Amino acid sequence: MTDTPLKIGVLGYRFMGKAHANALARLPMFFPDAPTVARHTLIGRDEEALASAADRFGFANTATDWEAAIDEVDVFYNLGPNHLHVEPSVTALEAGVPVLCEKPLAPTLDGAETMRAAAADADVPAGCAFNYRFVPAIRYARELIAAGELGEIRQVRGRYLQDWLVDPEAPWAWRMDADLAGSGALGDLGAHTVDLASFLVGDAVGDIERVSGHLRTFVDERPVYDDAGNVVEHRDVTVDDAYTAQFAYESGAMGSFEASRFATGHKNDHTIEVHGSDGSLRFSLERLNELELLRDGGRGYETMLVTDEDDPYVDRWWPPGHVLGWEHTFVHENYEFLMAVAEGDEFSPSFEEAYEVQRVLEAIERSDARDEWVTLR
Amino acid sequence: MTDTPLKIGVLGYRFMGKAHANALARLPMFFPDAPTVARHTLIGRDEEALASAADRFGFANTATDWEAAIDEVDVFYNLGPNHLHVEPSVTALEAGVPVLCEKPLAPTLDGAETMRAAAADADVPAGCAFNYRFVPAIRYARELIAAGELGEIRQVRGRYLQDWLVDPEAPWAWRMDADLAGSGALGDLGAHTVDLASFLVGDAVGDIERVSGHLRTFVDERPVYDDAGNVVEHRDVTVDDAYTAQFAYESGAMGSFEASRFATGHKNDHTIEVHGSDGSLRFSLERLNELELLRDGGRGYETMLVTDEDDPYVDRWWPPGHVLGWEHTFVHENYEFLMAVAEGDEFSPSFEEAYEVQRVLEAIERSDARDEWVTLR
Amino acid sequence: MTDTPLKIGVLGYRFMGKAHANALARLPMFFPDAPTVARHTLIGRDEEALASAADRFGFANTATDWEAAIDEVDVFYNLGPNHLHVEPSVTALEAGVPVLCEKPLAPTLDGAETMRAAAADADVPAGCAFNYRFVPAIRYARELIAAGELGEIRQVRGRYLQDWLVDPEAPWAWRMDADLAGSGALGDLGAHTVDLASFLVGDAVGDIERVSGHLRTFVDERPVYDDAGNVVEHRDVTVDDAYTAQFAYESGAMGSFEASRFATGHKNDHTIEVHGSDGSLRFSLERLNELELLRDGGRGYETMLVTDEDDPYVDRWWPPGHVLGWEHTFVHENYEFLMAVAEGDEFSPSFEEAYEVQRVLEAIERSDARDEWVTLR
Amino acid sequence: MTDTPLKIGVLGYRFMGKAHANALARLPMFFPDAPTVARHTLIGRDEEALASAADRFGFANTATDWEAAIDEVDVFYNLGPNHLHVEPSVTALEAGVPVLCEKPLAPTLDGAETMRAAAADADVPAGCAFNYRFVPAIRYARELIAAGELGEIRQVRGRYLQDWLVDPEAPWAWRMDADLAGSGALGDLGAHTVDLASFLVGDAVGDIERVSGHLRTFVDERPVYDDAGNVVEHRDVTVDDAYTAQFAYESGAMGSFEASRFATGHKNDHTIEVHGSDGSLRFSLERLNELELLRDGGRGYETMLVTDEDDPYVDRWWPPGHVLGWEHTFVHENYEFLMAVAEGDEFSPSFEEAYEVQRVLEAIERSDARDEWVTLR
Repeated sequence: MTDTPLKIGVLGYRFMGKAHANALARLPMFFPDAPTVARHTLIGRDEEALASAADRFGFANTATDWEAAIDEVDVFYNLGPNHLHVEPSVTALEAGVPVLCEKPLAPTLDGAETMRAAAADADVPAGCAFNYRFVPAIRYARELIAAGELGEIRQVRGRYLQDWLVDPEAPWAWRMDADLAGSGALGDLGAHTVDLASFLVGDAVGDIERVSGHLRTFVDERPVYDDAGNVVEHRDVTVDDAYTAQFAYESGAMGSFEASRFATGHKNDHTIEVHGSDGSLRFSLERLNELELLRDGGRGYETMLVTDEDDPYVDRWWPPGHVLGWEHTFVHENYEFLMAVAEGDEFSPSFEEAYEVQRVLEAIERSDARDEWVTLR
Repeated sequence: MTDTPLKIGVLGYRFMGKAHANALARLPMFFPDAPTVARHTLIGRDEEALASAADRFGFANTATDWEAAIDEVDVFYNLGPNHLHVEPSVTALEAGVPVLCEKPLAPTLDGAETMRAAAADADVPAGCAFNYRFVPAIRYARELIAAGELGEIRQVRGRYLQDWLVDPEAPWAWRMDADLAGSGALGDLGAHTVDLASFLVGDAVGDIERVSGHLRTFVDERPVYDDAGNVVEHRDVTVDDAYTAQFAYESGAMGSFEASRFATGHKNDHTIEVHGSDGSLRFSLERLNELELLRDGGRGYETMLVTDEDDPYVDRWWPPGHVLGWEHTFVHENYEFLMAVAEGDEFSPSFEEAYEVQRVLEAIERSDARDEWVTLR
Repeated sequence: MTDTPLKIGVLGYRFMGKAHANALARLPMFFPDAPTVARHTLIGRDEEALASAADRFGFANTATDWEAAIDEVDVFYNLGPNHLHVEPSVTALEAGVPVLCEKPLAPTLDGAETMRAAAADADVPAGCAFNYRFVPAIRYARELIAAGELGEIRQVRGRYLQDWLVDPEAPWAWRMDADLAGSGALGDLGAHTVDLASFLVGDAVGDIERVSGHLRTFVDERPVYDDAGNVVEHRDVTVDDAYTAQFAYESGAMGSFEASRFATGHKNDHTIEVHGSDGSLRFSLERLNELELLRDGGRGYETMLVTDEDDPYVDRWWPPGHVLGWEHTFVHENYEFLMAVAEGDEFSPSFEEAYEVQRVLEAIERSDARDEWVTLR
Repeated sequence: MTDTPLKIGVLGYRFMGKAHANALARLPMFFPDAPTVARHTLIGRDEEALASAADRFGFANTATDWEAAIDEVDVFYNLGPNHLHVEPSVTALEAGVPVLCEKPLAPTLDGAETMRAAAADADVPAGCAFNYRFVPAIRYARELIAAGELGEIRQVRGRYLQDWLVDPEAPWAWRMDADLAGSGALGDLGAHTVDLASFLVGDAVGDIERVSGHLRTFVDERPVYDDAGNVVEHRDVTVDDAYTAQFAYESGAMGSFEASRFATGHKNDHTIEVHGSDGSLRFSLERLNELELLRDGGRGYETMLVTDEDDPYVDRWWPPGHVLGWEHTFVHENYEFLMAVAEGDEFSPSFEEAYEVQRVLEAIERSDARDEWVTLR
């Protein structure tokens, strides 16, 4: 591997910034074969908040000009809000700097197309951070499906339920604005589900042929609060609070998908269910160490802990039964991405794959607007 | 109540015949206030099988001519295959004989309309046997929703998963023929779900405005076996093996529905989930004594046994914690229907309500055929 | 089989009277091969209550003198309170009348010994109504263990949790009096668990060598209410509210057992867990259609519905997935007992087997009194 | 806080060494208010393995002489095998060096007494690393109990099930030797359960008055393998593979406890259940983000994710629903311990508290040896 540490530049220092900074910090102890990295520059707009975050997250430098910062680093992490995904990512790729960009790839399909094209032209990995692909139980599930353990796949069900917007007085945020975020539950949560389903069963069921989509906004304006907690204005919610969708796959398989930020009582319930001719499986992110598997000849779902030594990534961590958390997915993801960077390999999920997700999201929105089933653009 | 027993005539002597005969037999011990009934005539085509069933089910007489039989009885139960629902039910109603008909009401919406009209003209109860309305946990759930415990209802999810057709060598049956059954998983299972959702949340979310539907047949022909177990021919499967659907309700609420006879590992998994602004609930028929309730201010779903003395119907049976089975729903249903007959009351679910279900089924099929969202006819 | 119906005499007309009367009534439709029976005489002390119960439960006669009544019947069911188990059962057996007696066999080990001796001298079946042996999932579990599917059995865990006495104002009842009931949670609930464990694993682990027991009474007097709901007196609670016990089996296996009437939130949670060298299983009465099985080579417990056609007794009832309830265990039990009566076979659980349960209960009480591990008397 | 980093010396570099090294490494990012620490010296016997571990775990130095190493550091972590707990811990305390020692405190009660005395004489924190006290759900549960939400506590149940010794060919290890480990499942797993129960309900139920214990060794010798995987010898297993115990508390409450390394299918199933007069709760380590709570007036257990912002420690990590793993308990524990060191506060669990656990373990062993209930020494 390389002797000189890879200098990482990270745009975004809130939730995702923390998640990736943590992942980078944890690599040496658990993935000592990973490339050495330097948390080089943290990029953002608010200098004060940025300095404090850089200090906490272990970054040597901060920058408010992403363009300049990209020049200084070996790898660029784009963890900013969705409307900042396109330009900085493309700039980095054009400069030959590998990019790991948060999901969804872009607020619009056009933006995603631009990013895909830039990635195709670049000679470095361009990855989209669909971190749930890196849950050990999910990778194990994928192996089972690929090995044919479930037989012919016929039905796929995915849902992602949260409830942080149930209260109509919950504050307005950029995630509720179409210009900044693209879409709402669909892009934020649905993107994960569509990607995860594709990761699990895509090879088995082929492309999605047609979709029918439905989007709803339950609360159409939200308060903006000042620091004292007083409402200073109301802003429009211009994205969906929930979506549902039906999929028809090339193979004849069917899919049903949905997400909500209004599913009272569900915090982070990302569930995938698959039925095949020989078996079925279920996964929920709230119990991410577990997989429920109905085997061929079995009489019921087996509730298994996917924490055995030979389960994906588990030998890097703790003995069987010592469960991992949500954050570990980022460590796995960063490991794979940085290995790809160091070895000049492809990284999956790529911009190309993330673009495919975007095609589905766009089709769901189009179907909703037209009130008809649509084929993917 | 009446002194003279009500003479019951029952068309159909297989699965449903047994379920209702059992219910009638159990009433005196557990619902002594129910009208006295005589299991008078069992109606069918195969005289030998009929005689044997009548003996087992406690019927005094058998008949192969349903028209003549209807003349002899006070109440008519239509438990035959779907294509026999319309004519005998209408005949009975026109003769002033109350009818309890199995679901779905009819193979087609036109048939259902004819039945609804006959019921409207008749002066006696005309009920459709959606027995899951009579699960104590369901009735309790309905009361909670009606009392506003869940707040404004925003999402409804229903699915009915079975797996008895996963094996492509499973024998052909009338339920797989469009002419005899109308539709497949949609009419057999989906009818239950649509009715149950309407029973639970209909008053809260209003009418269904639009639906998008998707139907699939995974195995399009099935073997017919002779008594020796040899395949004698193959017949076409002309109904759906699975459906999915999206609903848009008048109130702005969303629904997602599906059913399958190919959901490997699921035997009779009829699940309903409801999210409101103040709470959520879940029910599955495979654990029919339980209800999962997320209360306002609660931090998670409460898994409760609905077997307390003041839960619906429970005081008629056993002390708390002594669980009921699937069949008890038929006892409750028969009790309510016969009480309505005796007292001249309305019975719910009525033909009118079952017709509404049929409108939804028809719209799902129409949407599937046209590849677009449709409004109900 | 016999042409003349067996005349059944039943002592006790409350909870257990209803459960067995119901079972007898249901046999012809579901177990047509069972002997024909007549619900002949219902025996009790309160004539008015008795007449009303006889009418409801379908008994032709009532009697307040059990001795005389036994002379009139072919089969005697002893469903009275525990202190009435010995004398009437022995009287019946001495008269050559088969007996089915509710559990626990007797309030004391001496009483149980008398009953066992009477059964040994008699030429007719003498059964003890441990109905949980007749749950399909339990019988299926027993078959698995007998077939060696779990390997060498090493640990057995049983608990029976109820909460009907949590409220200190709950009324005094005969079940709380040592003279009338023998013991409390131990005899009422523990008897079931000890029997069920023996039924499941007894052949595998051999006799219980030693036990350590612990009994507690949390509330030591209870109010007696008059009809107007006023407290007229307080009576002492002279039995245990909860027990725990440890078992050492001949084979080296270990057991841990407990029951409580104070386990807040548990209505009828009778759970058995077994660990063997090749697998494990779990069962809970509150989900009595399910069995959780960890198979050899499996990675987790399989949650299965034991409602398939070839599961024990299931073919008599409904198709797969149509769950049974608590009461069905009584139908199975009555079927087996009456078949034994009709065919002159042995019935299991016999008085002999129930006496073995009583030895364990007595040892638990003795251990508690002496504060030491004890061997069975 | 201090400017000079606290120099940490750690004895032990395997499983626990890795767990604590990771915890130390993670503090700055998530608990920036914690004292600054230097991973100063890693102590062990095998120089090569030690050097490699020090490199991986970020220690600046290694040492094979613990006595000399203790002189060099500010804080001593004793993570060695149980037989090394007493002497180095006492030496450190006598030198005024704070100690965090892994559990169980010592292989014998005498050893624990020596350690307790040394801690009492020392002016610095002496903590025992019962990490499960630092699970957010457990701390939340403790608050609920302390606030009286469960009413009067009557029953406590604890079990810790693993299956890593089910295979009789699993290799011999120091944990199976009485001289090195003290006891087996009892000291390794039971110590956790006894401590956790005391942490949760100790204030409510008072001291344990009496215990009855039972220990078993299912496989009494184990193979030792060479590097090529050949068996070179067999060594005796001189500790228990499983234990069960009954407790009688001062308040009249009852306890039942057990642990096993032979519970086929259970990897790390540490479960605690508590029943009070007003409510009940359940926790399992395999689902450590969840707590099941039966509230006063509730109808069933609420399955809650304890990942809300105001749940213990959660605000340091991720938003609601983003679950933590097993390792996070070590971060919390290290944070609390180092804060106590820095601020001169007491740390709980202290050696005194760990000694109390040891008294219980000793009593269980003594009861097993004598076949009688015993009071604590």
